[in-house]
Amino acid sequence: MITGKNYIGNKLSATGNYSFKTINPKLNTENPTAFVEATPEEIEEATQLAATAFKTFRNVSGEDKAKFLNAIADEILALDQELIDVYTTESGLPEGRAIGERGRTVMQLKSFANLVANEDWKGNTFDAAMPDRQPLPKDDLRKTVIPIGPVVVFGASNFPFAFSTAGGDTASALAAGCPVIVKAHEMHAATSELVASAIIKAAEKTGMPNGVFSHLSGRGTVVGSALVNHPKIKGVGFTGSIGAGRAIFNLASQREEPIPVYAEMGSINPVVITPNAIANRGEAIATNYAGSITLGTGQFCTNPGLILTIEDENTPDFITALAEKTVAIDAQCMLHPNIKAGFVKNSDSVTAQGGVSTVAKITSDVADNFAASQIATVSGADFLANPKIHQEVFGPFSLVVTSKDEAELIEIIEALEGQLTGTIIAEDNDIANLSEVVEALTNRVGRIIFNGVPTGVEVCPSMHHGGPYPASTNAKYTSVGTDAIQRWVRPISYQSFPSELLPKGLQK
Amino acid sequence: MITGKNYIGNKLSATGNYSFKTINPKLNTENPTAFVEATPEEIEEATQLAATAFKTFRNVSGEDKAKFLNAIADEILALDQELIDVYTTESGLPEGRAIGERGRTVMQLKSFANLVANEDWKGNTFDAAMPDRQPLPKDDLRKTVIPIGPVVVFGASNFPFAFSTAGGDTASALAAGCPVIVKAHEMHAATSELVASAIIKAAEKTGMPNGVFSHLSGRGTVVGSALVNHPKIKGVGFTGSIGAGRAIFNLASQREEPIPVYAEMGSINPVVITPNAIANRGEAIATNYAGSITLGTGQFCTNPGLILTIEDENTPDFITALAEKTVAIDAQCMLHPNIKAGFVKNSDSVTAQGGVSTVAKITSDVADNFAASQIATVSGADFLANPKIHQEVFGPFSLVVTSKDEAELIEIIEALEGQLTGTIIAEDNDIANLSEVVEALTNRVGRIIFNGVPTGVEVCPSMHHGGPYPASTNAKYTSVGTDAIQRWVRPISYQSFPSELLPKGLQK
Repeated sequence: MITGKNYIGNKLSATGNYSFKTINPKLNTENPTAFVEATPEEIEEATQLAATAFKTFRNVSGEDKAKFLNAIADEILALDQELIDVYTTESGLPEGRAIGERGRTVMQLKSFANLVANEDWKGNTFDAAMPDRQPLPKDDLRKTVIPIGPVVVFGASNFPFAFSTAGGDTASALAAGCPVIVKAHEMHAATSELVASAIIKAAEKTGMPNGVFSHLSGRGTVVGSALVNHPKIKGVGFTGSIGAGRAIFNLASQREEPIPVYAEMGSINPVVITPNAIANRGEAIATNYAGSITLGTGQFCTNPGLILTIEDENTPDFITALAEKTVAIDAQCMLHPNIKAGFVKNSDSVTAQGGVSTVAKITSDVADNFAASQIATVSGADFLANPKIHQEVFGPFSLVVTSKDEAELIEIIEALEGQLTGTIIAEDNDIANLSEVVEALTNRVGRIIFNGVPTGVEVCPSMHHGGPYPASTNAKYTSVGTDAIQRWVRPISYQSFPSELLPKGLQK
Repeated sequence: MITGKNYIGNKLSATGNYSFKTINPKLNTENPTAFVEATPEEIEEATQLAATAFKTFRNVSGEDKAKFLNAIADEILALDQELIDVYTTESGLPEGRAIGERGRTVMQLKSFANLVANEDWKGNTFDAAMPDRQPLPKDDLRKTVIPIGPVVVFGASNFPFAFSTAGGDTASALAAGCPVIVKAHEMHAATSELVASAIIKAAEKTGMPNGVFSHLSGRGTVVGSALVNHPKIKGVGFTGSIGAGRAIFNLASQREEPIPVYAEMGSINPVVITPNAIANRGEAIATNYAGSITLGTGQFCTNPGLILTIEDENTPDFITALAEKTVAIDAQCMLHPNIKAGFVKNSDSVTAQGGVSTVAKITSDVADNFAASQIATVSGADFLANPKIHQEVFGPFSLVVTSKDEAELIEIIEALEGQLTGTIIAEDNDIANLSEVVEALTNRVGRIIFNGVPTGVEVCPSMHHGGPYPASTNAKYTSVGTDAIQRWVRPISYQSFPSELLPKGLQK
């Protein structure tokens, strides 16, 4: 059932010469299918199809888009065990995670289907005419939003379902009325092709125009760049590393017509733990955070990579407890040899900086692509002096910073780059003294959590998953939750328009 | 009262060596005051003051921000005739326009004051906790918006009040809680300094932190670039030419931390006139459009620079009537010798292209900086073949394109760059056949008008003043109307937060 071919609209196509295979990270072997990189001609055909499909799709009713999105969810579920097996084979993630993430993906598709079934999400406004106003009459004005055009989605390595082929970016863009071309993630090309086949089936069953969805395999620097540079493409969704996200942002900004890039990238997700919290329940916090740091082999964008403390007599024991509990959790498989290599390189780079010492690290033999979890520590002064210590280590690694006082803690928070999340672990009697910490953190993050863990991103209207650069390229938009649809639309005003020519939602 | 100095926060300062004077375009003479360009040290001081002021200003209540904005309006009015005189002296625009534009500016300030007096504009959302949800409990989540930080505003040459120093960008950014540094427009530096003095007085009277507003003079390539590149600056508002706006966008996109640029730039504002409309009321349309084309010497971003017709037996007479009525209106002064030079150069460039012919142009002697209004015409085929004919001519110039049929008209609309507005002039019995034209236009513009003129931009919730590139660098945002505040904020989620630490609007 997996062909290794591209979907150029509804048609399977593989005319290119370059191909590649995915890896089974647990076995460290190649998977069987060769995926054929899309050619320039195939890319051109997919973008032209998308532009043509846009002329129809932009006017498809909310009800019909909802049917399409729900049908995608159904077709994904219909792939059943085959899809789960391919996911685990390509990602090294366990079956339970695959099933859970599939559930989240289906739920996201259904929540966008619900959202667009009526007009509320558009925030339509109406200003009545005032023909007798002095000194000038006022015209009737009505405002709604319309889709921006065909968009390209780059999926994440760490969420082969929920942030990939039929993930939040694709679901929200289709819900908005934008055709989508997915550049398949090279690490899970087979998973991606199966999900793409579900989208194509759903599009055909619900009568969507050919080209509303295409799916291309290949190298980012070849296929990805060509898509981002194509004049018919009007926006980009991306989840991944700062390096790749910034490269896409640069291409898009340098086009003759710049286009928006919604890239959700790196974050070290600072967690402030007060001395009182450590004194009262340090052991429990250590247990909780050892779990959060190693969850999904630390391969979450909300992984707590930086723990900020104010040093007192209890700090050393807390750090030791956190480290011991973290390395006591069995080493787990990473997504890909490249991810493992990056983890080793980046954790070695941080721990090689002056003043940084490793508290604990899994030292027993770990299999090829498994990660040796690690906790390191550094003083506030050393952390402040060296931005290299601030870099993200993608994987089960966390750095505990011991500040000498609250002033230094605040200085550290203010020196951080933009973050997806910030967390405060504190006692009730700390609350009266926390306003400066809250103030400093809110200025650096997109979500702030009290007495919880940053991992686990609820899909709901009040979720904001994004943050100041480099957490996102555009801090105004979320990639999780129904507001994600707002990335793919733009406002338009209708002035003195006859009712027959107004979009349905603006008619009275 | 006009000093030629910069406001570094509340302090007047002029330590630099480079200075310049403004022009009286009507007399073609220099005005007396020498304006001293801000030095790198002054720019640094202003940005540091803004960053420090932000720590206070971001928490100033809506009520207190409203007092500040209303006080700015009062102080502008208190400048009375002196301000009106300086405006007319520097812009060549008549006193009635100055008074009208001052009224609009005061109204804008008051409308943002009204907007932020309560929390509604933030769109706060609340998701209740579900502690018993299976398989995982749901935390309490609440979302609001917070200001992004200090911003730089570049004013427009053609609106010395309403789109400049205390114009919509400044008013909306201050309303959002962002300190503002205005880079004064070099063509109206004295007008700008006077308005800045009103803002500074209002800030002092209402107890705003020093640095909430600064005002710097100098060259865009020196002072403007330094501001856009400064790490403490988090956003830019701009109104002006495509060249200058794109240069700012490029700088901002290439920063280590890219920042948003909301640039409202060029537009030729296509107007489709149906054969029926020309047949039934061509003369009245010609009269109406001659007025719109020459309004404010054609120096509006919504000036109708492109008129699209389908050729039939009535078209030649209509074009002749439009041209004769346009040139029958007395030549008026342009804003500046550079604007006049640009008008001559660009109108000559368009009319020199193959197939373009001038229908009428004011040929009597016009004074130095006065504009000779002009109407030209070209066939649809020639227009489609040569993008040089599509360029904006800023001033009283309009090009009438005669398409051979509706298919060619649609092709022309689809070939246009992004526009602020599109207009349709039609009869009731045309409406049933207009859907394709409406469809094509909506995909290219930010506002679409039926049987009206694009000039005149109402300030109200349903106004969208922006459009696909190059009309704006970000088609999602308006620079007119209360939604303009959304450019200067970003969302933030609070998860499981104690009420005492929540912003007031998120407490229950």
